[in-house]
Amino acid sequence: MILRLRTREELARWRARLAPGAALGFVPTMGALHAGHQSLVVAARRECDAVLASVFVNPLQFDQRDDFERYPRTEDADCELLHASGADAVYLPAAADVYRPGAAARVLPGPAGADFEGRLRPGHFAGVLTVVLKLLQRARPHRAYFGEKDAQQLFLVRELVADLDVPVAIRPCPTVREADGLALSSRNARLDAAARAQAPVLFRALRAAVALYAAGERRPPALEHGMRTVYAAAGIIPDYAAVVDDATFLAPQDGAGADAGAWRAITAARIGGTRLLDNLALAAC
Amino acid sequence: MILRLRTREELARWRARLAPGAALGFVPTMGALHAGHQSLVVAARRECDAVLASVFVNPLQFDQRDDFERYPRTEDADCELLHASGADAVYLPAAADVYRPGAAARVLPGPAGADFEGRLRPGHFAGVLTVVLKLLQRARPHRAYFGEKDAQQLFLVRELVADLDVPVAIRPCPTVREADGLALSSRNARLDAAARAQAPVLFRALRAAVALYAAGERRPPALEHGMRTVYAAAGIIPDYAAVVDDATFLAPQDGAGADAGAWRAITAARIGGTRLLDNLALAAC
Repeated sequence: MILRLRTREELARWRARLAPGAALGFVPTMGALHAGHQSLVVAARRECDAVLASVFVNPLQFDQRDDFERYPRTEDADCELLHASGADAVYLPAAADVYRPGAAARVLPGPAGADFEGRLRPGHFAGVLTVVLKLLQRARPHRAYFGEKDAQQLFLVRELVADLDVPVAIRPCPTVREADGLALSSRNARLDAAARAQAPVLFRALRAAVALYAAGERRPPALEHGMRTVYAAAGIIPDYAAVVDDATFLAPQDGAGADAGAWRAITAARIGGTRLLDNLALAAC
Repeated sequence: MILRLRTREELARWRARLAPGAALGFVPTMGALHAGHQSLVVAARRECDAVLASVFVNPLQFDQRDDFERYPRTEDADCELLHASGADAVYLPAAADVYRPGAAARVLPGPAGADFEGRLRPGHFAGVLTVVLKLLQRARPHRAYFGEKDAQQLFLVRELVADLDVPVAIRPCPTVREADGLALSSRNARLDAAARAQAPVLFRALRAAVALYAAGERRPPALEHGMRTVYAAAGIIPDYAAVVDDATFLAPQDGAGADAGAWRAITAARIGGTRLLDNLALAAC
């Protein structure tokens, strides 16, 4: 079975035993692992000499206590999946191992963290970036793997690493989907049958934006209207359905980026009480 | 002469050539070096296999453009002092080498950064902590040396390292003083003869708090009144003259800490147009 590291000291000892030149790949997760996480571990295994995962449901990034408490926790299954995917060890800290009492210094994102998830979940990205930086400092990996499904998070983690000079390469991995397009997410486990049947509406809305873009549409409001039309047909009002510039994660500037395929359609919606999010690159295809 | 590293690439190459087990000591400065900085380099030289200093007047930590532009810059003299003190290399980056265009992620201090310098210089500590974290990521030292003169900064750097798990030991070094008690500071160079004659008032005010404390006074307002009385006799209204708990850098809680000698008198004042700051530990002596 996979080696379970419970404390930062155990992690430090494991890290110190790696050969000096060994490339370490790191896959930080919140557990409740699925094939999306598995693809991150597989990518790390392919590129690195050693592979470490972490499973930590980070209280700092939840603005809703209820959401934190209801977040699925499946440690033994997670460890089996990590082992089967090729991870060498998993860091499973308790909250008290991660945050000392009164810990107060925080990493804050720039303007790209203000809208979308940042607006709907106040403090969420400060919590994400703070724990990601901490884990990167503790594990000191050469490469860290993040899913493209959480596009704004991925953008901000890359910004964190670039702006604060963290010596790690961020490796994005494509979103893994169900046959009907639903992006894999730990939160999918909370969907009942009716919600599960509705959930692919996010992907269909994004596909509508992709189709409009492929047909030559370059007006963000028109692309967004295309997404909202799909939602409306399903009787759903999304949290947001927007187009952003991939280089800034802000609304595209007039005329900028569109022809380079550097736009992205992003959306989030509450389906049967469960918040789901998804995104697709807009590229002329 | 000392090796001058101008870019992060030159720094990275120098860092990569150090022996794997070599302990690196790092002394970050804003230049205009004096015997206070020298003591940091000497301490690093004593404890480490290799010693790196940096000289960077960090625009991000200046709230006043004028103060940034008037900050003394004395590169050749700095390099001579660093060489004479035993540093092996100095990193002298341009602002464009430190901050990429649009860099937006920031490190923010907790409540200990809100008062005193944090209140009087909005954004100052976010600028300090952000550049300190960046330099620590680039240099990856085993130990980093900071002067006790900037007590709030030292507190927040320690908080940064502890809260964000930066793998470095922070080494505080005692304040170096002129014969009349004036703490060495790069800004002292700006004092004219009249201001220089007035400047020891900060030290005298702090000594008054120390004397009261040694005589058994444990009421923070009484200790602060003692400091303000010294200032008033010199016709000066300080920016602040306060007592903080060394463990929190906040106002002491009733009855807490006083007997452990864990309080500190801190002050800042504008003398002839130049802002000076200083502090002394309050210990029963």
